[in-house]
Amino acid sequence: MMDGMTVGKAGEFGLIRRIMHDFIYRPELVVVGPGDDGAVYRTPPGYDQVISTDTMVEGIHFTKETMSPFDVGYHLGACNFSDMAAMGAEAAGFVLSIALPEALPLSWVDGLYEGLRALCSKYRVNLLGGDVTGSPSGVILTGTVVGMVPQGEAVTRSGAREGDIVFVTGTAGDSAAGLYALLHGMGEKWPRLAARHQRPEPQIRLGTLLRKAGAHALNDISDGLSSEWNEIARSSGVEMEIDLEKVPLSEDVRALGREISVNPLTWALNGGEDYQLTGTISPSAFDTIREETSITPVGRVVKKPGSGVYGWSHGRKRLLEAKGYDHFDQ
Amino acid sequence: MMDGMTVGKAGEFGLIRRIMHDFIYRPELVVVGPGDDGAVYRTPPGYDQVISTDTMVEGIHFTKETMSPFDVGYHLGACNFSDMAAMGAEAAGFVLSIALPEALPLSWVDGLYEGLRALCSKYRVNLLGGDVTGSPSGVILTGTVVGMVPQGEAVTRSGAREGDIVFVTGTAGDSAAGLYALLHGMGEKWPRLAARHQRPEPQIRLGTLLRKAGAHALNDISDGLSSEWNEIARSSGVEMEIDLEKVPLSEDVRALGREISVNPLTWALNGGEDYQLTGTISPSAFDTIREETSITPVGRVVKKPGSGVYGWSHGRKRLLEAKGYDHFDQ
Repeated sequence: MMDGMTVGKAGEFGLIRRIMHDFIYRPELVVVGPGDDGAVYRTPPGYDQVISTDTMVEGIHFTKETMSPFDVGYHLGACNFSDMAAMGAEAAGFVLSIALPEALPLSWVDGLYEGLRALCSKYRVNLLGGDVTGSPSGVILTGTVVGMVPQGEAVTRSGAREGDIVFVTGTAGDSAAGLYALLHGMGEKWPRLAARHQRPEPQIRLGTLLRKAGAHALNDISDGLSSEWNEIARSSGVEMEIDLEKVPLSEDVRALGREISVNPLTWALNGGEDYQLTGTISPSAFDTIREETSITPVGRVVKKPGSGVYGWSHGRKRLLEAKGYDHFDQ
Repeated sequence: MMDGMTVGKAGEFGLIRRIMHDFIYRPELVVVGPGDDGAVYRTPPGYDQVISTDTMVEGIHFTKETMSPFDVGYHLGACNFSDMAAMGAEAAGFVLSIALPEALPLSWVDGLYEGLRALCSKYRVNLLGGDVTGSPSGVILTGTVVGMVPQGEAVTRSGAREGDIVFVTGTAGDSAAGLYALLHGMGEKWPRLAARHQRPEPQIRLGTLLRKAGAHALNDISDGLSSEWNEIARSSGVEMEIDLEKVPLSEDVRALGREISVNPLTWALNGGEDYQLTGTISPSAFDTIREETSITPVGRVVKKPGSGVYGWSHGRKRLLEAKGYDHFDQ
């Protein structure tokens, strides 16, 4: 409810009191909950720990036009949890640091935490605390996620092998297409695309499935497929060939592309923020999981040692450079 | 070296390449180092995990006048590690998210990481990754630390018992006095005070010692002693009495106070950022450690259940309210 209260009027400690409820969704892991100098949590024996951090900046990662406060909370958690999925890990705990302008309505912060709680509840991740401070201009949010993976089983991006299938889960490009729609006042016409940008789902279940199936390399699609593939190729020291006509695109992405005369593949390759997974796996392992889930073979690891990613399209092969999003290059 | 390069010209990926070296100071804990979607680390059996996060905002927590980039890196790490000390834990891993204006010189970022590396090297904490993004105005840095403590032995702020001694480690108020000196062009005249503000030391060793000695409650001094004591009293449900004349003050703090006619106790009670420790412990346990370390008894837990903190000064007792720093109340 809008009650005219701002962050500045509530003050740091008033804000903390307002935020701190419904934080724990997996109590068996919590020893000391949020509110002390640090939160204390337990990890089951036989697991390695995983950590990752992601920041969202108002004006760069979101604006009032592209995301509600609920969306921002959901998206920030999702892009963090997605990094766990990309290691084959499950997310277990999350801390959130928020830098807020004084004039920000308290209702904005309420919405942020509603979105974050919805996500944490869905994926059973504990909110273990955070930090609250002022910001000279705009909202800046940093989340850090800790997760766990059976000891020695984390899936890196550096393990791709010659002969592997390159796969993509779900569809790619939806988030970038959704962002285009939102920025051009077409969000209501393309609600599924907008939602893929605003409230992406971290692919924890698929990441676990791929780890168990023996995937050799895994990345989440945060910067666009061209970037993710190049990262895997460089880290693994392999050459990859992709059949660009096989990249999985949703009906909506194709339709919006037709409407505005844009090749929708561009969104998939260079867009990012889809938070689906891409990686490599042996052909036999691929066959064991392809029936179970939405996963598309798009190419092959053709050479190791090797370097570079090549895309086939209309019978022509060309070098596919990383064209992901640079946060300083706007 | 100043080479005229800025963060914006280097770009996100150029910046990451420049930063990513000399990150690991405790290799036996690292399974997958920084550079993948998440870092993977191992924790010894029999330990609980601890997590905390802290943010520093240019213009609020530091300015060009008060801290060099080296100081900012050192201070950010130290205030995070200090939260581990306050739980009786040791810091083991750290991730850093940085939001930077495009025009920021690359040399600033180099200095930041030099300071952070100096700290991580000293306390043997692994840099496990981070995030780099743009900022519309000013530098905003968020660090998250993970640490470990023997299972079930974390020292909270809620365990104070009637009859406990209230103690303070080292001296208090130095950081606030140092900040005063820096803001008034007197940093060179008071180098020890300035250093206590710029490069505080996290009291990991003392926190561990206090945990082993059986301290019942523990906080680090981030918001000033009046705040820390009130937090302990409220969380523990106790009433505390403090002999304000016993609060440990350094010679420099007293001297600067005399020079500018300020009661130096104000810096200790309401200043903060000392990152020393305060807490409560049984008198017999206190006796076992008082010879080993710089620790001062300043009061007693007089009643449980109870509430509030009372300060004695010149034979008078008065309620001591929390007057810590509110980041929205400038």
